[in-house]
Amino acid sequence: GLPGLNASAGAGPCLAPLQWEGRWVLYDHSTGRNSRAAVSYDGLNQRIRVLQQHKKHTPCQKFFEYIYLYQSMVMFQIDQKTKDCSKIALTDTWDPFDIPDNSTFEDQYFIGGPGDNVEVQEWSDRKPARQHETWVGVYTMKDCYPVQETYTRNSSVTTSTRFFNLQLGISDPDVFTPPGTCQSARPERMPESDC
Amino acid sequence: GLPGLNASAGAGPCLAPLQWEGRWVLYDHSTGRNSRAAVSYDGLNQRIRVLQQHKKHTPCQKFFEYIYLYQSMVMFQIDQKTKDCSKIALTDTWDPFDIPDNSTFEDQYFIGGPGDNVEVQEWSDRKPARQHETWVGVYTMKDCYPVQETYTRNSSVTTSTRFFNLQLGISDPDVFTPPGTCQSARPERMPESDC
Repeated sequence: GLPGLNASAGAGPCLAPLQWEGRWVLYDHSTGRNSRAAVSYDGLNQRIRVLQQHKKHTPCQKFFEYIYLYQSMVMFQIDQKTKDCSKIALTDTWDPFDIPDNSTFEDQYFIGGPGDNVEVQEWSDRKPARQHETWVGVYTMKDCYPVQETYTRNSSVTTSTRFFNLQLGISDPDVFTPPGTCQSARPERMPESDC
Repeated sequence: GLPGLNASAGAGPCLAPLQWEGRWVLYDHSTGRNSRAAVSYDGLNQRIRVLQQHKKHTPCQKFFEYIYLYQSMVMFQIDQKTKDCSKIALTDTWDPFDIPDNSTFEDQYFIGGPGDNVEVQEWSDRKPARQHETWVGVYTMKDCYPVQETYTRNSSVTTSTRFFNLQLGISDPDVFTPPGTCQSARPERMPESDC
């Protein structure tokens, strides 16, 4: 992985790190559900591994591992308990966790209290001719790590993802290799709930 | 204002500062609108002053100052341009920006990148007998400043508020005094948009 470059508000957006590991909480506004996961992000090879994390009070919930391989346009969904595996074709193109060059600077501020904070910049895909943005990204000033990404459609938020405990690089590249059960993977997505 | 106390995950919640100034972005999920404001928070005297901030691309938007005085159960809404003033009775009780004693510890993590981050704790009002929480608060470990508050009803988020550029204390207590135009205030709330 490469370290990011700093950027001031006047200059263009900073360059986000290409490989990191950490956690996220993804809030899906259509279902009202928070999904917590450990995440390995490999922007160099366009792949992401998402290991859903267990929380209390989820009796019917299944927990999956997701391996997205955008260079092969395929996603593997693996049941963490049974190792059942589904192999699904990806239809969206690769969308890295970074700030595109043509983004619009929105804001810059400190998260946290005095003497204990992190400075961040907010960027969006808002354009002068268009009233509303469809993406807002919050990234740290120093080293350009993701803090929050929000996607909007028809001016209402669809998903917002908060990132934390981020570390540079990939400690174990094997996490992107699907297990043996994926040799005979089923072609349908498995539901996340039994009930 | 008093500085907060630190708390570990094992202990109870930390004590949030009683007086601070800063900014917030409040996202209202029902309207899909972000509202940015400068905020003075006085938990000692149960009052909040919210000065809405202008953004581009808002031709029909009016910008208001809001002064909430919970000890008098009244809110003043002041048009920033015309100084027109409305005086509205408050019906909700005072809800401070802090973590109630009986809250449930949810998570603890770092926001930001390696060597440039802020450690926070997440608390909620989730109870063992109840599946879903109606409030989630994210506060800094050190000094217990608010980072994010999310309110949920029927398992879908209603508002989420992100806090930043926080400073301890109130620099100018006069911001809680309504202007002269509020002597003859109208009793109806003014709409935030003209169109």
